[in-house]
Amino acid sequence: MRIVPMALAASVLLASAMLSAAPPSAPDDTAWRTLEDLTTEVGPRLAGSDREAAARDWAVVRLKALGFSNPRIEPFTIRGYVRGAEAARLTAPFPQNLAVTALGYSAPTPAGGIEGELVYFPTLDALRAAPDGSLKGKIAFIDHAMKANQDGSGYGPFGNVRRVGPRIAAQKGAIAAVIRSAGTDMHRNPHTGGTGWGDVTPIPAGAVSLPDAEQVARIAAKGKPMRLALTLTGQTKDNLPSGNVLAELPGRDPKLPPILLACHLDSWDPGTGAIDDAAGCAIITAAALRAQAGGKPLRTIRVLWAGSEEIGVFGGADYGKVHAAEPHALAMESDFGADRVYGLRTSFAEVNKPLHARIVAALAPLGIVEQGGEVEGGADIGAIRKAQKLPVIDLMQDGTRYFDLHHTPDDTLDKVDPAQLEQNVAAWTAVLRIVANEAGPLNGAN
Amino acid sequence: MRIVPMALAASVLLASAMLSAAPPSAPDDTAWRTLEDLTTEVGPRLAGSDREAAARDWAVVRLKALGFSNPRIEPFTIRGYVRGAEAARLTAPFPQNLAVTALGYSAPTPAGGIEGELVYFPTLDALRAAPDGSLKGKIAFIDHAMKANQDGSGYGPFGNVRRVGPRIAAQKGAIAAVIRSAGTDMHRNPHTGGTGWGDVTPIPAGAVSLPDAEQVARIAAKGKPMRLALTLTGQTKDNLPSGNVLAELPGRDPKLPPILLACHLDSWDPGTGAIDDAAGCAIITAAALRAQAGGKPLRTIRVLWAGSEEIGVFGGADYGKVHAAEPHALAMESDFGADRVYGLRTSFAEVNKPLHARIVAALAPLGIVEQGGEVEGGADIGAIRKAQKLPVIDLMQDGTRYFDLHHTPDDTLDKVDPAQLEQNVAAWTAVLRIVANEAGPLNGAN
Repeated sequence: MRIVPMALAASVLLASAMLSAAPPSAPDDTAWRTLEDLTTEVGPRLAGSDREAAARDWAVVRLKALGFSNPRIEPFTIRGYVRGAEAARLTAPFPQNLAVTALGYSAPTPAGGIEGELVYFPTLDALRAAPDGSLKGKIAFIDHAMKANQDGSGYGPFGNVRRVGPRIAAQKGAIAAVIRSAGTDMHRNPHTGGTGWGDVTPIPAGAVSLPDAEQVARIAAKGKPMRLALTLTGQTKDNLPSGNVLAELPGRDPKLPPILLACHLDSWDPGTGAIDDAAGCAIITAAALRAQAGGKPLRTIRVLWAGSEEIGVFGGADYGKVHAAEPHALAMESDFGADRVYGLRTSFAEVNKPLHARIVAALAPLGIVEQGGEVEGGADIGAIRKAQKLPVIDLMQDGTRYFDLHHTPDDTLDKVDPAQLEQNVAAWTAVLRIVANEAGPLNGAN
Repeated sequence: MRIVPMALAASVLLASAMLSAAPPSAPDDTAWRTLEDLTTEVGPRLAGSDREAAARDWAVVRLKALGFSNPRIEPFTIRGYVRGAEAARLTAPFPQNLAVTALGYSAPTPAGGIEGELVYFPTLDALRAAPDGSLKGKIAFIDHAMKANQDGSGYGPFGNVRRVGPRIAAQKGAIAAVIRSAGTDMHRNPHTGGTGWGDVTPIPAGAVSLPDAEQVARIAAKGKPMRLALTLTGQTKDNLPSGNVLAELPGRDPKLPPILLACHLDSWDPGTGAIDDAAGCAIITAAALRAQAGGKPLRTIRVLWAGSEEIGVFGGADYGKVHAAEPHALAMESDFGADRVYGLRTSFAEVNKPLHARIVAALAPLGIVEQGGEVEGGADIGAIRKAQKLPVIDLMQDGTRYFDLHHTPDDTLDKVDPAQLEQNVAAWTAVLRIVANEAGPLNGAN
């Protein structure tokens, strides 16, 4: 029965949805197509790289083709990280290679690498307890016990091993630091990610995969001195080009402040950034379009495909600065993969409680349940939200698998479940149909 | 209640099992300990490498400590493969890196790599159909559709893409060949393995991971010319040192031919060879020991931890040659991971049908079912089996996960399920209790 080619059939579906004849939630393949094409035609798009620039150009063309108004690039520059050669070898007591990747803003080793005694710390606190100067000339290994949680809550405390572990090691005299990846999978694919130095002089800093970390822990338990040879030649560079991509679907009342939907366009470079965060861009874009079916909403919907989120939320900061004087109605962000939305939280002020209740009711048919806890918003909408006290809505995605893939070579298209991706689009569309048709006021509680 | 440390408790259990007071199937941790220590203290042990040599020394010490008689090395030399630098980058139409590994016996590229048009073949047959000379100056990409099967039956036909694909590409003028890994997982860990050239001049030959292969297929479908930059500097080397490790548990009647149990000690180098094949050595060794509980069996049990299986079954061939004149009773091999035994087949001659029936009955309590099809035996017992028409027994392991891990960096200890490993030991022990106590004759049907 499949006579019409898939892409054509889908575009007919999409066209019919946009021309309002279709029922409100007729699925289309805009999200999948956006995700597939961005990860295939651009691939990895490291902040500040020529591939991130290619992604911006790709995004402008794609958003225009999808019917968005005025797709445009807002450029800025960043301090970025340019990856180099990466290798780690345990040279004693049991010689073997470890799967390693550099952390963003790692200091470079010489091309030939460095070698030193490897000192095992089972936790970040154990490292903190090491006497000052005790790591002089040595390499610190920092282990931890991160496990998968639906809400991703392990990334806060255990992600700190990556965020501050190398700095603490440097403060105690270490010549390099290697951490157990902030991840939850058992594959030999280390998780990269940024680290921070404050006013401490950076040292080479890398992460090994979880099987490698377990191997190091087993070897450490045998009690013989360990030595590591480490090569991480990547470098921090200033003034690298980056930028945001913005576009709108104008509402019926152009005087009303827009709804801002954000994702990030850059990705870490080992994978193609399918779940982090091409999926987010695909979801918000497809939902913005699908929310047009049945008639243009009252408010303009703006999409922000932010640049250089990974290395330090540069895109969100630039957006907050450039658009500070421009009123916004509400902001939402999709940046937690492509698995299903299971929960929601909003930060509406008391006056908008009825609106909150309508959103909760609209999402219930998708199995989405109101959750407690503080509303997070998202990294790239953080600056504008704070400046304008915007209300935000968290559509909380199932993060059980997220840290299996996050910042690894395994973040590729095949990891996305089309049915769960579609559920995200349906959830976002349901929310947009409400908030983009609300004349206001829309007020944030904090 | 855990007052005795685990290792001590286990060694007490083991001692009691060996001293015959324990019930016949009392579990012990010999298999796990062997597996863990070999993969941790030696790690990767490529055929012909100094790490394979370290593994032989380790094996002699360990087998002696476990109570085996006369653990010894039988040396030989091999044509091996020494891994070098490995990188692949699609330079057009959408620049991005691919996760690649060299195949054993690949020709080296120059240090700076080679670059050429990449021609996509969806199947090995499509490559075969390409006109002679049509690949002159180009790089062949060979895709295929291997899927996971319980019995591993996909590895025959789809493994051929690796075994003969590069040679066919070379015959048609290709300057290099890259295949979709012969595997079933969706991780960015390519599967290595040997390839063969016959009298064709070798070309550089590599494998990319399955997500990368799908990416290449998607890009190929867009119809724009593809170009690949490929660096694989590893080299084939002659006269590399290797060897087998042998040891015995003598039977009550030293005049009866021994039962031969084989595994292989070498591993491909990206992982630590936990499932391929430290698990096999762990299983046969633990079962040989456990079969001693309750009294020494009639026949001697010999373990063969073969060298250099991966690159060309050199250990099995050497064993067949060195021990050609020495009678054997029966041979068995464990080389298909550590997941549970689900089936059995034997190649006993008609005269041994009652013995076959006893083995089937002894394995039924473990959920093991007699299977149809031809008995395989195993690579390392192949030469001696053929020379002496030995009966063999296949204890067929669940291979559903095997080709997710096979020949990849992901072949590490954490992938082994201790409960399934123990089920293997129990199955092997049950068989050994029968065959090692059978006075004979033991005759093979083929």
